[in-house]
Amino acid sequence: MSKFWSPFVHDLVPYVPGEQPKMTRLVKLNTNENPYGPSPRALAAMREQVSDDLRLYPDPNCDLLKQAVADYYGVEPSHVFVGNGSDEVLAHAFQAFFQQGKPLLFPDISYSFYPVYCGLYGVEPKQIPLDENFAIDLDDYRQDNGGIIFPNPNAPTGRLLTLDAIEQLLQANTESLVLVDEAYIDFGGQSAIALVDRYPNLLVVQTLSKSRSLAGLRVGLAVGQPELIEALERIKNSFNSYPLDRVALAGAAASFADREYFEQTCNRVIASREQMTAQLTALGFEVLPSAANFVFARHPQQDAGELAARLREQGIIVRHFRQPRIEQFLRITVGTDEQNAELIEALSGI
Amino acid sequence: MSKFWSPFVHDLVPYVPGEQPKMTRLVKLNTNENPYGPSPRALAAMREQVSDDLRLYPDPNCDLLKQAVADYYGVEPSHVFVGNGSDEVLAHAFQAFFQQGKPLLFPDISYSFYPVYCGLYGVEPKQIPLDENFAIDLDDYRQDNGGIIFPNPNAPTGRLLTLDAIEQLLQANTESLVLVDEAYIDFGGQSAIALVDRYPNLLVVQTLSKSRSLAGLRVGLAVGQPELIEALERIKNSFNSYPLDRVALAGAAASFADREYFEQTCNRVIASREQMTAQLTALGFEVLPSAANFVFARHPQQDAGELAARLREQGIIVRHFRQPRIEQFLRITVGTDEQNAELIEALSGI
Repeated sequence: MSKFWSPFVHDLVPYVPGEQPKMTRLVKLNTNENPYGPSPRALAAMREQVSDDLRLYPDPNCDLLKQAVADYYGVEPSHVFVGNGSDEVLAHAFQAFFQQGKPLLFPDISYSFYPVYCGLYGVEPKQIPLDENFAIDLDDYRQDNGGIIFPNPNAPTGRLLTLDAIEQLLQANTESLVLVDEAYIDFGGQSAIALVDRYPNLLVVQTLSKSRSLAGLRVGLAVGQPELIEALERIKNSFNSYPLDRVALAGAAASFADREYFEQTCNRVIASREQMTAQLTALGFEVLPSAANFVFARHPQQDAGELAARLREQGIIVRHFRQPRIEQFLRITVGTDEQNAELIEALSGI
Repeated sequence: MSKFWSPFVHDLVPYVPGEQPKMTRLVKLNTNENPYGPSPRALAAMREQVSDDLRLYPDPNCDLLKQAVADYYGVEPSHVFVGNGSDEVLAHAFQAFFQQGKPLLFPDISYSFYPVYCGLYGVEPKQIPLDENFAIDLDDYRQDNGGIIFPNPNAPTGRLLTLDAIEQLLQANTESLVLVDEAYIDFGGQSAIALVDRYPNLLVVQTLSKSRSLAGLRVGLAVGQPELIEALERIKNSFNSYPLDRVALAGAAASFADREYFEQTCNRVIASREQMTAQLTALGFEVLPSAANFVFARHPQQDAGELAARLREQGIIVRHFRQPRIEQFLRITVGTDEQNAELIEALSGI
């Protein structure tokens, strides 16, 4: 408590990210990082930026990166916003769109940053329970609201919604923004970016931290109609005109240009996920169908907290949420085939 | 106008950064970048980070960088906050400290981002006129307020306040935060970080964009007592847990470790500024005494807007603010000696 703080800071409950342990030689399956490195073309582009030119400001408009994203998705650069990780893009979106004096709807089991943003920007949250299969039922979102946000696939469940279901919601919910948070979409889903041209009420957010292996670089983006992008640009230019550094801009743009490496690594992760799912199922786990680079699994006899602790003793870190409804689940990132084998071997021995 | 925007976005007036032209071969003296590159040790540290490890998130707590700053200034890491450029640090500080239901005091001629942050966070601005010599008189700030912020040296004037004057304000103004924005302090001023231990109401903000030649990397910092740092961490962890990427963290830390290169380049800029000041004075300009890496100068007979336009025709860009009281001044960044000579030659011919 401090007299110097703005009063709302006293009640702020910040987000707690997954642990980033400083030990090495861990099998780190707790924060959904990609087991494979970034595109070699992205690395080369970044290396080139590490020069005396770092004395100069980066392009505040990020034109080259917006063009690379636009080229990849077949949209106009005016439909693209970029930021310092999708967390920053989401934060700006909460401020730009969701301060409406009506509740923001999102799943009760979802990205745990959403209620934190609500606290930061004075947005009233209204959490909509997942159904009994831990799936989002978008019919439950057909009610008065100041905005709707959900991840697709959802985290930490991994479950995917179809574009048809999302489109039906967009048609029914025309008076407030629908934000689809696609952090994991490249591991088996269809991006709602395909719908942006037809729906002025749709904003799609993505990150380069997962499928593009650039968690350490901090780049995220949003795609929507120019009217929505303008609101984000106004917020960004009232907050920090240069959120992306020269190295990040070049690396991110090169990553989007290297479609082949991207598809190759995504496919490897998908194949490993399917194998991991089969192996966990064989060990008696119930595994939710995942379209992400992680699985969400529970064992009918074994306590999840205890399993996580015993894996940790063996140098394997997975994520366990002490949270109602899902306290018996583990969220396990898909690693390399070697890491996944270590995980399965450890679980077999427990 | 859009029904999807949060209402306040319609009235938001974003900051307009100095032009970042895409032409090359310009003498670019408009955004106060350092004419010399970053420390070679910083470049080496950054190169090392461009690797497959970019698939992993950076340290959300930025411990190594905080330690490097703490070592440099002889404070504890718990006194240090870091962010994605000092603009992000300032934005968080406005939200963390200045939403007090009382006006925030700052100079009428100052960093033009301050009123923008006020718009973003609903803070009431109260601008205090500089005196007739374009200096800040801190006695004018002894009035009821919800916070005080000023750059030292001030921008765009370049004028420096003494630590004594700042300390007197801190002693008089004990009930609200005093934020000293030291973007340019290394070019001839004394940092108020020396006062942090004794004043719980003081927060000092710095950037690596100017004296450390890393505008393209986006790193800024704040130093204050832990109670103040905690408020900033709460905001940061409610906004974006990982604002600094792996490359930026390593480069910034290495820059603070290379004291020799830093002092050498600062001293070169200071020497060039003094020479530029003498040369402009000889050409009939009035030059305000500057402790920054720029000078603020006007000519009694020549219109500043016209001068800027004619310099531009010759490929030399300086900053001209169309703003009451200072519309006859040019803000000119100190460049290399060659660039400065080009400027002086061009002005001699006009």
